[in-house]
Amino acid sequence: MRPIITAYDWVPDFARGQVRDLRLRWALEEVGQPYDVLYLQQGEQKQPPHRDRQPFGQVPTYEAGDLMLFESGAIVLHIAQTQGDALLPADDDARARAIEWMFAALNTLEPPIMDRANATLFERDEPWSLPRLPAIDRRIDERLRELAGRLGRRQWLDGDRFSAGDLMMVAVLRIVGGTPLLDAHPTLTEYVARGEARPAFARALADQLAGFTGAPPPAFAAWVAAQGETG
Amino acid sequence: MRPIITAYDWVPDFARGQVRDLRLRWALEEVGQPYDVLYLQQGEQKQPPHRDRQPFGQVPTYEAGDLMLFESGAIVLHIAQTQGDALLPADDDARARAIEWMFAALNTLEPPIMDRANATLFERDEPWSLPRLPAIDRRIDERLRELAGRLGRRQWLDGDRFSAGDLMMVAVLRIVGGTPLLDAHPTLTEYVARGEARPAFARALADQLAGFTGAPPPAFAAWVAAQGETG
Repeated sequence: MRPIITAYDWVPDFARGQVRDLRLRWALEEVGQPYDVLYLQQGEQKQPPHRDRQPFGQVPTYEAGDLMLFESGAIVLHIAQTQGDALLPADDDARARAIEWMFAALNTLEPPIMDRANATLFERDEPWSLPRLPAIDRRIDERLRELAGRLGRRQWLDGDRFSAGDLMMVAVLRIVGGTPLLDAHPTLTEYVARGEARPAFARALADQLAGFTGAPPPAFAAWVAAQGETG
Repeated sequence: MRPIITAYDWVPDFARGQVRDLRLRWALEEVGQPYDVLYLQQGEQKQPPHRDRQPFGQVPTYEAGDLMLFESGAIVLHIAQTQGDALLPADDDARARAIEWMFAALNTLEPPIMDRANATLFERDEPWSLPRLPAIDRRIDERLRELAGRLGRRQWLDGDRFSAGDLMMVAVLRIVGGTPLLDAHPTLTEYVARGEARPAFARALADQLAGFTGAPPPAFAAWVAAQGETG
């Protein structure tokens, strides 16, 4: 039985390669599980029937038989725990540490990083966004420095074995990929590059990008044009 | 073997009953696992040896034998998965949904709620904080409305059985407890009240509060005085 995930058929350029169904695609590729994709037009995520799948009106979701899940962290963990050992080590303690890094990615690193996305994209026309950016960047930089310190010369966060914790951490760090924030920490740019060099990641990314076959909805196109930075 | 968690021996009044070791204490009480607490003075969390336990210099941590974990979400999940079935149902699909709600609490609800804490506490003297508050509150309100819609008349998020997902969601919603934000959603205030009425929660809260036996460090005392709202 092939699971079905949901994704968008169109997003603005800045979001391509970042929408969170990428995390599921990557996990499914790592464990070798074929899947189907149900594409939503922009706007559909806030309407039934998608609201029944996802109470917060977002993608992705994951459906397998009677099980319907949302939250990319929960879905990646479910895939990791139920499909072989490609994403979680067999040793109980190492397994707990891999899951710890998933939570660290989503609850310690991602909030300030998404705060920056809010300030530079969704709230960029608000008078408070630009003055606030240095404070946001200091918070992100502190977290990145701490993470780089812990990673040190390890290949992956818990040693020489890639796990679901690395998958999630690389996915989160990629949001500031190519910015001076991440570039200030070569330990982390190399870590992200190792993650992106995995064949499973490359397939997941190519498949997400290939799925953007839709047209922008009128309201969204106007919004993007007003941002003045994406085509 | 009793696990050892870390907590602070002093925090400002506004943080008492909110520090994240409460989540671990609550989970440990729910599964009936006695534990020991290593108390840190303010400032110690940023120095070794605590940095070795927690790369981001925060509490709580959890130590059991050779296993050292950080991230309250990961620790609660570890306790839930390894100590009986008090916090996770036996059915595989229901278990995945309980974990989904943990991630929803930590990655969908908590980021805007902590953003508000930043604006009203840690960045309250910044010129951008007050003008930004209405936008933050709109984001929080949208999430709360969506959550209330999904909860409906259920007792707990996945039906009539309390889980680690409810534990984490109640812990996150409590951060805006007693504010008009939460009070606008009686479905949620009643849900939080059901969580707080659990004997395990009451013991955990009492034990956290009883642990604040230290004195404020000089710099922290000055900072709190400058905030002008806590004693």
